[in-house]
Amino acid sequence: MFFHRQELQFKSKPDKPDAVFARKLQEVLGGQYGEITVAMQYGFQSWNAHIPGKYRDLLYGIGAEEMGHVEMLATMIAQLLEDAPVGAVEGAVQDDPSVAAVVGGMDVQHAIVAGAGARPVDSNGNPWTAGYVTASGNMLADFTANANAEMQGRLQVARLYHMTDDKGVKDLLSFLLARDTMHQNQWIAAANELRQEGLEEIPVPSTFPQSKEVREVSYQYINFSDGAHASEGSWASGPTPDGKGQFEYVAEPPRGVEMPPPTRPDPRMHGTTDKPNVMEKATGVVKDALHKE
Amino acid sequence: MFFHRQELQFKSKPDKPDAVFARKLQEVLGGQYGEITVAMQYGFQSWNAHIPGKYRDLLYGIGAEEMGHVEMLATMIAQLLEDAPVGAVEGAVQDDPSVAAVVGGMDVQHAIVAGAGARPVDSNGNPWTAGYVTASGNMLADFTANANAEMQGRLQVARLYHMTDDKGVKDLLSFLLARDTMHQNQWIAAANELRQEGLEEIPVPSTFPQSKEVREVSYQYINFSDGAHASEGSWASGPTPDGKGQFEYVAEPPRGVEMPPPTRPDPRMHGTTDKPNVMEKATGVVKDALHKE
Amino acid sequence: MFFHRQELQFKSKPDKPDAVFARKLQEVLGGQYGEITVAMQYGFQSWNAHIPGKYRDLLYGIGAEEMGHVEMLATMIAQLLEDAPVGAVEGAVQDDPSVAAVVGGMDVQHAIVAGAGARPVDSNGNPWTAGYVTASGNMLADFTANANAEMQGRLQVARLYHMTDDKGVKDLLSFLLARDTMHQNQWIAAANELRQEGLEEIPVPSTFPQSKEVREVSYQYINFSDGAHASEGSWASGPTPDGKGQFEYVAEPPRGVEMPPPTRPDPRMHGTTDKPNVMEKATGVVKDALHKE
Amino acid sequence: MFFHRQELQFKSKPDKPDAVFARKLQEVLGGQYGEITVAMQYGFQSWNAHIPGKYRDLLYGIGAEEMGHVEMLATMIAQLLEDAPVGAVEGAVQDDPSVAAVVGGMDVQHAIVAGAGARPVDSNGNPWTAGYVTASGNMLADFTANANAEMQGRLQVARLYHMTDDKGVKDLLSFLLARDTMHQNQWIAAANELRQEGLEEIPVPSTFPQSKEVREVSYQYINFSDGAHASEGSWASGPTPDGKGQFEYVAEPPRGVEMPPPTRPDPRMHGTTDKPNVMEKATGVVKDALHKE
Amino acid sequence: MFFHRQELQFKSKPDKPDAVFARKLQEVLGGQYGEITVAMQYGFQSWNAHIPGKYRDLLYGIGAEEMGHVEMLATMIAQLLEDAPVGAVEGAVQDDPSVAAVVGGMDVQHAIVAGAGARPVDSNGNPWTAGYVTASGNMLADFTANANAEMQGRLQVARLYHMTDDKGVKDLLSFLLARDTMHQNQWIAAANELRQEGLEEIPVPSTFPQSKEVREVSYQYINFSDGAHASEGSWASGPTPDGKGQFEYVAEPPRGVEMPPPTRPDPRMHGTTDKPNVMEKATGVVKDALHKE
Amino acid sequence: MFFHRQELQFKSKPDKPDAVFARKLQEVLGGQYGEITVAMQYGFQSWNAHIPGKYRDLLYGIGAEEMGHVEMLATMIAQLLEDAPVGAVEGAVQDDPSVAAVVGGMDVQHAIVAGAGARPVDSNGNPWTAGYVTASGNMLADFTANANAEMQGRLQVARLYHMTDDKGVKDLLSFLLARDTMHQNQWIAAANELRQEGLEEIPVPSTFPQSKEVREVSYQYINFSDGAHASEGSWASGPTPDGKGQFEYVAEPPRGVEMPPPTRPDPRMHGTTDKPNVMEKATGVVKDALHKE
Repeated sequence: MFFHRQELQFKSKPDKPDAVFARKLQEVLGGQYGEITVAMQYGFQSWNAHIPGKYRDLLYGIGAEEMGHVEMLATMIAQLLEDAPVGAVEGAVQDDPSVAAVVGGMDVQHAIVAGAGARPVDSNGNPWTAGYVTASGNMLADFTANANAEMQGRLQVARLYHMTDDKGVKDLLSFLLARDTMHQNQWIAAANELRQEGLEEIPVPSTFPQSKEVREVSYQYINFSDGAHASEGSWASGPTPDGKGQFEYVAEPPRGVEMPPPTRPDPRMHGTTDKPNVMEKATGVVKDALHKE
Repeated sequence: MFFHRQELQFKSKPDKPDAVFARKLQEVLGGQYGEITVAMQYGFQSWNAHIPGKYRDLLYGIGAEEMGHVEMLATMIAQLLEDAPVGAVEGAVQDDPSVAAVVGGMDVQHAIVAGAGARPVDSNGNPWTAGYVTASGNMLADFTANANAEMQGRLQVARLYHMTDDKGVKDLLSFLLARDTMHQNQWIAAANELRQEGLEEIPVPSTFPQSKEVREVSYQYINFSDGAHASEGSWASGPTPDGKGQFEYVAEPPRGVEMPPPTRPDPRMHGTTDKPNVMEKATGVVKDALHKE
Repeated sequence: MFFHRQELQFKSKPDKPDAVFARKLQEVLGGQYGEITVAMQYGFQSWNAHIPGKYRDLLYGIGAEEMGHVEMLATMIAQLLEDAPVGAVEGAVQDDPSVAAVVGGMDVQHAIVAGAGARPVDSNGNPWTAGYVTASGNMLADFTANANAEMQGRLQVARLYHMTDDKGVKDLLSFLLARDTMHQNQWIAAANELRQEGLEEIPVPSTFPQSKEVREVSYQYINFSDGAHASEGSWASGPTPDGKGQFEYVAEPPRGVEMPPPTRPDPRMHGTTDKPNVMEKATGVVKDALHKE
Repeated sequence: MFFHRQELQFKSKPDKPDAVFARKLQEVLGGQYGEITVAMQYGFQSWNAHIPGKYRDLLYGIGAEEMGHVEMLATMIAQLLEDAPVGAVEGAVQDDPSVAAVVGGMDVQHAIVAGAGARPVDSNGNPWTAGYVTASGNMLADFTANANAEMQGRLQVARLYHMTDDKGVKDLLSFLLARDTMHQNQWIAAANELRQEGLEEIPVPSTFPQSKEVREVSYQYINFSDGAHASEGSWASGPTPDGKGQFEYVAEPPRGVEMPPPTRPDPRMHGTTDKPNVMEKATGVVKDALHKE
Repeated sequence: MFFHRQELQFKSKPDKPDAVFARKLQEVLGGQYGEITVAMQYGFQSWNAHIPGKYRDLLYGIGAEEMGHVEMLATMIAQLLEDAPVGAVEGAVQDDPSVAAVVGGMDVQHAIVAGAGARPVDSNGNPWTAGYVTASGNMLADFTANANAEMQGRLQVARLYHMTDDKGVKDLLSFLLARDTMHQNQWIAAANELRQEGLEEIPVPSTFPQSKEVREVSYQYINFSDGAHASEGSWASGPTPDGKGQFEYVAEPPRGVEMPPPTRPDPRMHGTTDKPNVMEKATGVVKDALHKE
Repeated sequence: MFFHRQELQFKSKPDKPDAVFARKLQEVLGGQYGEITVAMQYGFQSWNAHIPGKYRDLLYGIGAEEMGHVEMLATMIAQLLEDAPVGAVEGAVQDDPSVAAVVGGMDVQHAIVAGAGARPVDSNGNPWTAGYVTASGNMLADFTANANAEMQGRLQVARLYHMTDDKGVKDLLSFLLARDTMHQNQWIAAANELRQEGLEEIPVPSTFPQSKEVREVSYQYINFSDGAHASEGSWASGPTPDGKGQFEYVAEPPRGVEMPPPTRPDPRMHGTTDKPNVMEKATGVVKDALHKE
């Protein structure tokens, strides 16, 4: 169950209206790595967890915080839009091109769809989609996804930080940066702990027997481009991070196998095939079918 | 530039038609973590790379291989569909409900849109979307995304492996499993190397000065759920993975700050506000505007 | 701020596994009118509210409950999938076509993407999208949207109720039906109260002066089809619900106005136009531009 | 069957080109509540209607009008774009930043995709999607959806009205406002009539026996936030709009039920589970399967 | 303006219910090349037309017919679903696996979202999207798009024809096949006429001066694969269809140009760059900015 | 298999940064008819081809080139963004509104998501979707789709050509224009060759017997609008392009057939039906079901 309290985790009030920045903020609210994504992602991971205890509690514990971040950003965006100019009647707009530029940058949907409110979309107005969410039931994979999400998220907030000089907005971003610092660290720590406790291992899923892989290519770096520098990395020689092999560098892909012949599906697919084949097939039952149906 | 050779990296031929499994295979071709995703993701990461040399070469080197995996899976799917039953005229279907079940499971779009061919969609027919791709210009974040993508990908292939007993299909899956093993290891090694070379550090982006964060909450685990077990993890006490702090456990969120008052945007937004306010605003210029325009 | 408690609002446990029904349940979790939609919708409406007090509190108060419904359904779906058969190796599947039919109906993504867990998608696997959310800042419009959402939602749950005989599942649906009964009533009551308090009126937005409409057609039913029965309804004669007019029935659309001539945009658009026009335009500056650039 | 006449229902001609406003107008053409939505929505509701006569005739009668509104808006948009500046070669742009601002605001896709024509997208370029359409076969639910659609639509047009001072555009908007006034009234009247005739009732669907609900919570307002003001509304005490109960206010959610234990699906899902369990399961048939396959 | 008549262009009544086929039919109603696509496509092409007369009349004349086809298919689908079995309570389902297979194949959304009605989606439940529509303002390009749409559409209907033995359904498909035959012919004829009248030419757009192309490669077939057979086609030697050149076959791509060096954007992008560069840049104004902001 | 070489097919370097044009270029990279579309389309067509030899080789040969075009555009976009201004701290922005306009036009996602890099999206930020791809297995249909794609693509590039005066950008566009010229010609030639070799014919699919069409309307132009000019075209009289009929002009649609009665599905669908019918049905088994379940 979720409960709501009419408070914010941190102050969230801009110094002045700024419709252009309001639109930019939408990215970290409703974009691929915005707060809706992490709130939903940690939620579904907790509901799909297969062991009780600390890992699931961690997912629950952070997930609800992220829903509060959605609220903080929505609140901030509404305030940035509150006193922003609306339309063409303001004399200022006609007289002052710099104001016109600002107006031109206001998101039309902020104005006419939300009436100067926040929306569950990204900075280009793409509606948030659950296609962003990862929840596989395998915690090592998922915690790696979470670490990535917090990295991308903090990166985006840092970039936004340089795009405003509004003290109130910067304060909120400073808070979000700190929480992203924490959460990056947590997911990395949790991924490590899973491995230390032997619950999961690299390569994920470790419960799949590697004996069933094509072992010859399990640790080969096969270079499909013509740059030779990738041979210099620790991913091209030496022990592998999973502790189960040695990297090997293959400078050029070996000869492949011949492609199987093109498929020749049922003539009722009406694809383009070489005629004799069609004829041959059509001589029997199928030919009848084609003409009798 | 990309070049194509009419070969496959590995044999890709099923023992028998299986339209139901063809549909399942679409997931690792055109799903969130399918081969199109990684091919495009490594491509855009290489084109957006900001340093020459081994890291960019690595992206180029793996990216082109993944395009070949797209081809292998498409080829396999077309073969699985090649001789699968099409429609209602087959007597067998009427007589044998087990065949009917198989036919019922065939993807309609495989049949009537692609004419028994592969499609750039997932196992439920959702078209592949670039909303799956991550390419931020920050390599530590992106390599973490890549490690995750290879984990999720290998996990899905492993699950598919248990859903067929077709030897030819299993062989192809065995090959893909091995390559995913390699690529997981490579992205983890590359992420480590970035950190060792000081090019990037946790928390990402390390070039953003942490002095600008709200430092008090940078290493606090604030528990927004009521499970206490998360306090037992290495993410709740002790040194943090970034080496810059100590985890602290906060069992319950502290009191927040008061919400700012609701926004009262321009009356021309026609939102629902308390009347006196509307009236007051409307007394001046805006009221005139409302009635004169 | 949101807080989570590790409890469910109501018991949510099926009697037996049922992968096919798990997929059906996804509709009311992640479909157009599923629980994610109402949770997000009431959230954004509260964050975009422009008056403090009872209406906003109502949005907050129901919104958080709906997040808990998301959790209840996700929990139920995971249990329905828990012991469902996975793949081809089970002997039962080969032997018993009725089991095969069930397996054939299992959602592939439930299996290989979520590892037998719930997903933020609808019953056909379409990812939830924020394109479903309505939050305009105008409460009469939005409460009408909410009433509709609860009606559609209850309708879908009722239909699902007839598709299972699992007692545990039916219990959960009975609970959801009751809550939807309540919420339908609440939004209707709230919409009425808004009108009684004079905060908003029909036609929405009532703050827009009707004097600026083309008054002649404000209360005319113009019939664009050839069925005459619509003239019998209370929407074709008598007083209008907004209390501001009388319905009038117009059996056939009056003659319209002539279409404006086709546009002839700049020749650099390279659209298809009648040549003389292109030539004429191209004689001047633009012609030069076309050949000099 | 649909028939087209080369006329418009109302004049639709702007005074001057305005590419920025053309983009804004796209919202009410191809947005969530634009004319394409209502045209399609009323169409599918009529085709899915289950009773002949006045209700279905009403759907047909309005649906075709809305297709004409799509045409009017498309025509207007093409004219607003007709003589708008195209690209960088115009000297004016270099010299006059206010013109630059306008050019900067022109939708790129209007120019290079449509060649200065209208598009079936919203004001941010999101393609129209049928995910916006509601047609459930239950008329009380659907007419409520329609009333909401006309409210949201009229609200958006009213907002647009304030954003232009082009007389020709304002005339068209005045016409659309009037038609939305009418249609709001009609759907409300039709919803009332359905109830008066006993064809449907609140709570929708009234044909589902309420005896199967969890009656204890059918009329309880359970407050999941900490604002107490919602208790003051007519939705918290007194008779319910469906005439079947009395509202009851519950200030705090009662204790819930314990969550079911985490699911432990088949080990071939390769999710993260507590090892003993995995081992135990794997001792039998499944373990063999894991290693033999 | 559009007008509706309560008739169908052709009889549309199935012999018996068939929920599985109803789902298949959705493809040609709401899929990429379904009737909604062509109705909308011809509509937008007519509204964006730049010359009056026969071409625009043709678009109008066919566009409205296609809206009627949407209606015919929706009507057919509703009938196919009318008496199809709903849920688990039917004894037959438990007893007869072949019925179970049919039920398993019924689209869940047909049942619980539309109440046994048609939906504006494709056969996998993807909502129709305007991303399918083409309307560029250039008629030769667009008529080619239309010819393709009618080909793909007729192909899909032909494939569906083999998947049913319901006489009533086959009759409707026979009608649609005939209309697609006509429309294929019409768009090809119209494209030819445009060229004969000199309104447009290959290569589209012919109003763009070819002198501005990199002429050396305007007629070269550069083979980026290793199959040599493409040299045998009429596209590899001899005169080109536009009458302006001679095809030339280039067996292997010539050496390309060196890639430009990787970009090194502003350090405030926090991308991964080689440190000295970052340092250097950060010494000046930017460094200050990074630490002072 | 695909191989990558670190070269570009043509120089791709702008003279100066231009973030606004970078966004415009995204259209031909990741839009409906951008390079990703053709690369994927030719790829899937080749993998779904049903005959070996020249046609399939042609698809392979061009497909890989298009992947290189994706790379060229991505490289160009990254360079256009390389030194573009980032945010609010630049003094110039405050002082000079024309710079502000440019900044305002920069795509937010280019900045904060990609860190000044290219993205797999169109010019309005819509992620590329595989819904754009056509690959039916019927080559005449698909080559027509390809001809259209190259026409639309060249048209868009031509329009972009007029929107910049950057010599480096114009050079790249000149190259792409030339390649589009070639590919238009090739697909037209290939479509002709298919017909000449008798592999496919109009109407597509020619393998479907026209005897099964409703022959009376196979060559009738039925005018559903009121413009008479379409009767003047070669599509309204004379021989048809498929050589199998004579066009016939029908000035007005003939009377249609009566619509079937509205469907009355199972009462458990809870749709709106006329009560007696519901009662009648509910008297028997179904009524019991409704109350006993």
